[in-house]
Amino acid sequence: MSVVKDTNIPFSRESLEQLLKRRFFYAPSFEIYGGVAGLFDFGPPGCAFQNNVIDVWRKHFILEEDMLEVDTTMLTPYEVFKTSGHVDRFSDWMCKDLKTGEIFRADHLVEEVLESRLKGDKSARGESVKDEEDEDKKKRKKKVKEIKNIKLEDDVVEEYENILAQIDGYSGPQLGELIIKHNITNPATGGALEPPIEFNLMFDTAIGPAGNLKAFLRPETAQGQFLNFNKLLEFNNDKMPFASASIGKSFRNEIAPRAGLLRVREFLMAEIEHFVDPEDKSHPKFDDVKDVKLRFLPKKVQESGSNDLIEMSVGEAVSCGMVDNETLGYFIARIYAFLIKIGCDPNRLRFRQHMSNEMAHYASDCWDAELHTSYGWIECVGCADRSAYDLSVHSARTGEKLVSRKALSEPRTVEEFEIELAKKKFGPKFRKDAATVEKWLLSRTQCELEDFAKKLEEHGRIVARIDGVEGAVELDPELIKIEKVKRTEHVREFTPNVIEPSFGIGRIVYSVFEHQYWARKDDAERGVLSLPPLVAPTKVLLVPLSNSSELQPIVKKVSSVLRKEKIPFKIDDSSASIGKRYARNDELGTPFGITIDFESAKDDSVTLRERDSTKQVRGSISEVVEAIKEITYSGVDWTKGTASLKPFNS
Amino acid sequence: MSVVKDTNIPFSRESLEQLLKRRFFYAPSFEIYGGVAGLFDFGPPGCAFQNNVIDVWRKHFILEEDMLEVDTTMLTPYEVFKTSGHVDRFSDWMCKDLKTGEIFRADHLVEEVLESRLKGDKSARGESVKDEEDEDKKKRKKKVKEIKNIKLEDDVVEEYENILAQIDGYSGPQLGELIIKHNITNPATGGALEPPIEFNLMFDTAIGPAGNLKAFLRPETAQGQFLNFNKLLEFNNDKMPFASASIGKSFRNEIAPRAGLLRVREFLMAEIEHFVDPEDKSHPKFDDVKDVKLRFLPKKVQESGSNDLIEMSVGEAVSCGMVDNETLGYFIARIYAFLIKIGCDPNRLRFRQHMSNEMAHYASDCWDAELHTSYGWIECVGCADRSAYDLSVHSARTGEKLVSRKALSEPRTVEEFEIELAKKKFGPKFRKDAATVEKWLLSRTQCELEDFAKKLEEHGRIVARIDGVEGAVELDPELIKIEKVKRTEHVREFTPNVIEPSFGIGRIVYSVFEHQYWARKDDAERGVLSLPPLVAPTKVLLVPLSNSSELQPIVKKVSSVLRKEKIPFKIDDSSASIGKRYARNDELGTPFGITIDFESAKDDSVTLRERDSTKQVRGSISEVVEAIKEITYSGVDWTKGTASLKPFNS
Repeated sequence: MSVVKDTNIPFSRESLEQLLKRRFFYAPSFEIYGGVAGLFDFGPPGCAFQNNVIDVWRKHFILEEDMLEVDTTMLTPYEVFKTSGHVDRFSDWMCKDLKTGEIFRADHLVEEVLESRLKGDKSARGESVKDEEDEDKKKRKKKVKEIKNIKLEDDVVEEYENILAQIDGYSGPQLGELIIKHNITNPATGGALEPPIEFNLMFDTAIGPAGNLKAFLRPETAQGQFLNFNKLLEFNNDKMPFASASIGKSFRNEIAPRAGLLRVREFLMAEIEHFVDPEDKSHPKFDDVKDVKLRFLPKKVQESGSNDLIEMSVGEAVSCGMVDNETLGYFIARIYAFLIKIGCDPNRLRFRQHMSNEMAHYASDCWDAELHTSYGWIECVGCADRSAYDLSVHSARTGEKLVSRKALSEPRTVEEFEIELAKKKFGPKFRKDAATVEKWLLSRTQCELEDFAKKLEEHGRIVARIDGVEGAVELDPELIKIEKVKRTEHVREFTPNVIEPSFGIGRIVYSVFEHQYWARKDDAERGVLSLPPLVAPTKVLLVPLSNSSELQPIVKKVSSVLRKEKIPFKIDDSSASIGKRYARNDELGTPFGITIDFESAKDDSVTLRERDSTKQVRGSISEVVEAIKEITYSGVDWTKGTASLKPFNS
Repeated sequence: MSVVKDTNIPFSRESLEQLLKRRFFYAPSFEIYGGVAGLFDFGPPGCAFQNNVIDVWRKHFILEEDMLEVDTTMLTPYEVFKTSGHVDRFSDWMCKDLKTGEIFRADHLVEEVLESRLKGDKSARGESVKDEEDEDKKKRKKKVKEIKNIKLEDDVVEEYENILAQIDGYSGPQLGELIIKHNITNPATGGALEPPIEFNLMFDTAIGPAGNLKAFLRPETAQGQFLNFNKLLEFNNDKMPFASASIGKSFRNEIAPRAGLLRVREFLMAEIEHFVDPEDKSHPKFDDVKDVKLRFLPKKVQESGSNDLIEMSVGEAVSCGMVDNETLGYFIARIYAFLIKIGCDPNRLRFRQHMSNEMAHYASDCWDAELHTSYGWIECVGCADRSAYDLSVHSARTGEKLVSRKALSEPRTVEEFEIELAKKKFGPKFRKDAATVEKWLLSRTQCELEDFAKKLEEHGRIVARIDGVEGAVELDPELIKIEKVKRTEHVREFTPNVIEPSFGIGRIVYSVFEHQYWARKDDAERGVLSLPPLVAPTKVLLVPLSNSSELQPIVKKVSSVLRKEKIPFKIDDSSASIGKRYARNDELGTPFGITIDFESAKDDSVTLRERDSTKQVRGSISEVVEAIKEITYSGVDWTKGTASLKPFNS
């Protein structure tokens, strides 16, 4: 169904948000207790819409690609995230106002203050300040309330612009230096700030009555999938490539969340982990998508200081090397198809590659599907190549092999470093630490072994620090031998690489609201949410023209047909006018209306109304329901779906 | 589809559990890190089964009854659970072995030790000890490893039996007395135990960077629904009764979970909160269910020391007052229909009423749907009448009215206590506490006001302790006046009562596995999971007879038809024998097989196999797919669904 939006009313975020709260799409959680920043509840229409989006996601990805869906726990022991790197690196930098106790996210604060100074400078120079210019930054409500018109030196302007271009790349101490150098203070009070400290974004808790098993709420569903890798591979009869998938809540203890559904502390994710042979990242279904044309913003363009999109087919993008491989390209195209299906505007969708300094610690490459909203371009789907990072670190930590094996067409000779331990000497020398030292040595990588071999040769010993062992550990050739060894292999054993499309469902849901919200011509009050029928919370509004008992049997009849067909519907038999009843449901995104009038009582005919065009057609109950089914679930358009029905003018 | 189980193999929990783990229905979470008790991951077939159960639940309850589904957060601030009573009362009693540090759940320990002594006594008396007798208690792995044959005095036996009959009703200090009196120690070491202390079962964490907003992970989804009551009522156009519903994870920090999926720390719940007028708990659709015959175990029977079930219709149960009201009866019948639909054995299902001493702190009446398993009778669905408890306490705490209003057919006169404050005197007297005292006074119940009025009259003052105010607060008639006042009301304002059907999905899922697991005649190795087609993880296994390229086009053709019809299927084109391939899928609960042979290549005909009976029929691709659809999604039985297909003997 193509959306016809006959309007002359400009988009207003405020009126959309009022609608979403008034009709309980969502609301701040615990509102009667004053609410908690970054926590939101979905009411009936929001929840139904979200469920439908998930249902489409499951069919589009899991069913279509035979993915292995798993449901893993959110409670996760400390060790898992220590290994994955989240304990050390999943954090933001915050600084505190010593006096008021107020806490700021350091990068956001520096960014906002410098931006406001640049704006003040422009005003002082008499240049007009376009609001659009910094729409990307409106993601959060401003801390800086007032812009002061102060002219800056030209070299200062240049320096600020330079800082802003790389704002996502600074470390905490660097942010601290910027804060001092540029005299950045609490914008509200001018108060001094403490140097930035790291704040880990995971919520922590403890499992069990003794309280000594430290745990976190997961910040992503991915780890649960990686830890089950061996079971999944076995379930898949040891065949590669394959993908697992998981839909569930994750958590981030944001420092100061302030952008509605776009930055929340508890959120629904849908994540795919597609495991591939690092030597073969081709995709068998790549041909199906290679002609899909998309708009890309690659790393190189951004690094040259531009935001110009490059439009090309996925096939071209892969063959020219801009997108690294077919599997990555395939998922980018499938993500696009999914987003369009659930109501994203293709003209407000781009794929942006991460720059090297903004990538998550586990990623080797990443393309984000970004949706354009009144807050700017919003990252809604990440499509990262996590390489062999996660499987490798968990394997090294637990001693459990997480690998796939492939018979070689021809045997091959490999040279590898092998380590040999004089185990009998370990006990006397290391006593209670012997097992730890052994385990540590046996889980070293090839690179590390090469390094050890060199050291042993050059210095006659290795000195190492080992987790869980006090003091330095010294090893000499009496204890270990490291040699390069030739072996003939018939089977290649490898740690799979992972391509991870990761969807933030709440952000997508909010963006669709923005893309599909409009108001009818000359009437800003008559908001419409043109949600695609497939994902609309309710598909049909049943409207009897009057409360007359004559119409009741027809209402019952239509209801029972709709219920039998499992088409979600609502009845509105209130005394409000037909127009008012439809207007209320336009706000809820209900795509169809069935009007029951006195003619219906005579011949079982009813009127079918389409939400966006307000066009009406008439036919028998079964014809009308059939049209609704075809348009909603089979993707037929309105004209074709209602071809056999008569036009109707009320 | 009626299940035909041609077997002579007795049920074995061990072989079922092996199957469930081998085929990755579920597995301990973080197994490569050693696992965490009470946390489990669902693998592909378990996850798909669970999703299908949820899908049926949503259609059976939410869609059928027009319930308002919400999705609320798991992170919940301290205040909410302080008010709801969970901070003070949602706990178990635990005791610690001073020496080993081992922690026991006090009631379970007392129960287990006394039971083992009674068993030892029976053995010593030469009586046979039936295992069935205490199957209810097998829910957890035993702490007591060895039963000693020691004869007890007759009065001791009687005392132990008495204690066990009321074991769910003891307070912590009472359990402590029992432990001392009956010399109960650590069963493994004989070591002394510390007196029981209360352990709150909620996981705690903190929200925000300052760490001062204390929060819990919810132990139930209910509170999120209660807190949104006003928004839900408004969404429902202020009409009563109505129900909200929520599907999501909840958490319980169990002291020592040891019964697989039956006692876990993170679990999926589906909860309904049906809000009714306390003066009218009739249900408009009660007539539809009144003839459903169920097996009840009411409070009175249990209190008389019996476990005999009473079989009667829901209509009778309500009219004789055993089940309190129509709404409760309606939901009991609907719960029954749901459980049967997804594969529970009706002969292993009963409704047990809670005894007064075991009810949750918020409940005024409760019936559990219990399923019988090898662990005994397991509570899987609670159907509680929470009365006005939750809405009242949240309203009192927040000052937000959580009520419904109903126009009275005739105005009526009511007498109520009203409180009048001499506000001008509050400031000078209470200073900074004035607002707190005022708010506290204005949120008192009628009973409390009556009590105050009496005290004011008798003693000329009231002395109260108020949260947040230091010291006692003294109030006299100069400050407050409390009088009984007559008013004429045209509208009745009331706090709705709540009927809450609450489903533990994991427990139901596990029970269905037990109810539907069996092994083929004379072959204990050939396990079958007879999951109903509607909820089976995969509906169809596609089996080409050979790997010949001749059969490939038919495999593709059948696949594309199944995919178009959105019927989940898998292809097994491995070189294993047909029999072996089917056996593997019997374990996965796949109800249908389509065999593709060389005949298929000629005339497009295929064979359809039914899992439980292994019956086969033959027809065209479209006929066979139509039969699968009818049986799976429309509930048609095998005989009727395949009437037009030809019998086939391979």
